[in-house]
Amino acid sequence: MEQNKIVIDAMGGDHAPLEIIKGTASAIKESESIYAIFVGRQEEIQPIIEEEGIDSDRYEIVAAADTITMDEKPKEALDSKPDASINVATRLIRDGGGDALVSAGSTGATILACSREIPRMPGIERGVLAAIFPAMKQQRSDPGVTIMLDVGATLHCSVSQLITFAIMGMHYGKEVLDMQNPRIGLLNIGEEETKGHSVLVETHQELKKDKHFNFVGNVEGKDIMRGVADVIVTEGYTGNVVLKSLEGIAEMGMETGKQIWKKNVMSKVGIAMLSPVLKKLKKRLDYSEQGGAPILGFRKLVIKAHGRSKAKAIKNAVLLADRSAGNNVVPKIEASMKEYYMDMFENGSEKES
Amino acid sequence: MEQNKIVIDAMGGDHAPLEIIKGTASAIKESESIYAIFVGRQEEIQPIIEEEGIDSDRYEIVAAADTITMDEKPKEALDSKPDASINVATRLIRDGGGDALVSAGSTGATILACSREIPRMPGIERGVLAAIFPAMKQQRSDPGVTIMLDVGATLHCSVSQLITFAIMGMHYGKEVLDMQNPRIGLLNIGEEETKGHSVLVETHQELKKDKHFNFVGNVEGKDIMRGVADVIVTEGYTGNVVLKSLEGIAEMGMETGKQIWKKNVMSKVGIAMLSPVLKKLKKRLDYSEQGGAPILGFRKLVIKAHGRSKAKAIKNAVLLADRSAGNNVVPKIEASMKEYYMDMFENGSEKES
Repeated sequence: MEQNKIVIDAMGGDHAPLEIIKGTASAIKESESIYAIFVGRQEEIQPIIEEEGIDSDRYEIVAAADTITMDEKPKEALDSKPDASINVATRLIRDGGGDALVSAGSTGATILACSREIPRMPGIERGVLAAIFPAMKQQRSDPGVTIMLDVGATLHCSVSQLITFAIMGMHYGKEVLDMQNPRIGLLNIGEEETKGHSVLVETHQELKKDKHFNFVGNVEGKDIMRGVADVIVTEGYTGNVVLKSLEGIAEMGMETGKQIWKKNVMSKVGIAMLSPVLKKLKKRLDYSEQGGAPILGFRKLVIKAHGRSKAKAIKNAVLLADRSAGNNVVPKIEASMKEYYMDMFENGSEKES
Repeated sequence: MEQNKIVIDAMGGDHAPLEIIKGTASAIKESESIYAIFVGRQEEIQPIIEEEGIDSDRYEIVAAADTITMDEKPKEALDSKPDASINVATRLIRDGGGDALVSAGSTGATILACSREIPRMPGIERGVLAAIFPAMKQQRSDPGVTIMLDVGATLHCSVSQLITFAIMGMHYGKEVLDMQNPRIGLLNIGEEETKGHSVLVETHQELKKDKHFNFVGNVEGKDIMRGVADVIVTEGYTGNVVLKSLEGIAEMGMETGKQIWKKNVMSKVGIAMLSPVLKKLKKRLDYSEQGGAPILGFRKLVIKAHGRSKAKAIKNAVLLADRSAGNNVVPKIEASMKEYYMDMFENGSEKES
């Protein structure tokens, strides 16, 4: 069987390298196509790999002497530490040494390292960061997740940038997240097609008239987690603020609940009875269960796992990377992108705003 | 005692006129300074007023033959119905017939009617819509609410517009929401002062150097309900999307919880025991409990109650309007605004971006 070479930044994240390697080991047990390339300090990672009992023909180690921590400034850190694991990992990908990359390290440093080392797809100016949300199922066949992009790489976007987000999200949804015919929505302040500033109004028209898209129109903030669209397209500034707001309220809801419950004896009995249910609720709201979010726009797929990721989240992230590589997500996106640009040139329409 | 004339749009909202009048009646019982001016169809509202037993020296009725419904387009509706209650109410305010206005009608129609009829404060180009969120208390003395503005009236803003939002929010917080020395935050994608696009970077610097503001820096989406700032300044597009996202997830969290609980017998026993607690939680998350959100920037205060408001929310909204008028919020905002513009001209700084 053909193997997918997944490059693992073994030193990135709050619980690296232990949980990163444990998670990868679980993924390797679950999928035969994974070949792991651990990037990091050999003396630290080798003993963990042996402890986990990973077969010697399923992995290799590429040495990287340094690590970038979560609180370092991305640019300074990448410049001053050429041998940091994320620098070594992205160069490895650039030179053909891997099919996909998984990192739980600093988001800023990961995106910047990718931008510097990994070639972008033709027609793409910068990487795109996506977020995967749990979503309500409107129908039994719905995937139960929504992908929103961009959530922070490009603060303000042109019409054609927003269209490329739709293309990327659509293919990622199809090939990796089991979406049949992904419904594309445009994040806006109202459903009417005249809502929002001129870039949004024009993007709405472009998405509507292009037959490649299953466009469901504008989507409001309240609809993000309702499962009314599978792919939500937005500018990075808004996407980032919304993503963090949703994370914040989910955490706050839990805390508030706990505080109130603590004050009441009957509640304590009640909560004991409810604990399996609460765990399920937490799981559904906990986005780290999704494994990781793709960074798109490069010629290799990068999965960004949350910095707090433990083994389970890493396992899911590695499985996503494996699946993405196996299903050729990147070549499929590139083909669609080419088609989009060809149409644009043939129709003589500028599409840039 | 001096009376505050509160103009009530008796016909606006899903539960008008019954719940509007009931709520106003409760407010009148609670505050001696309220004098209510009900605007609407006399034959519909007079019997309810009598049923509620409002003293004849505490109210009057101003006739308005028409009503604008929630799903009508604001501009068309206001143009075709000159005698709609919101048109009559805003003209009444304009002509000095009231100190403040409360409406639970269509937000778009309310803002547009205000813009057309009520004079704006000097230096203000458009009305500003604020939202009041419940917030966690960091300290016992914290107000437990946060005011975010703008949430939809001005999609993209200049630096000086954002500064005027800070001025308005600060005074409203002090005089109406019991905030001692309101902490001002700027909604952004990170804490560092260099984050965000150029308008945000410049606004950050202006807020920081102006000694009138208790500026706490940039605030991220996750902090909105954490009570780290009392007044959160943002552009209308982002504010609107975030507001709706938070409303959406709060509703979805409840629904998800209910669905999961329904599936489990032990849970049903647990939930019965928890029901007083759940009610409290719901109350804390239910923003309509806050009564209403101010529309600022006009020379009279307007309180926009939620369209779904029942008597309790209306009562709270009328009490807010009464308090705002009594504490002279509008003149205080105008004085600060004048000071800001005087400083700007004296320092020869443009401040406009």
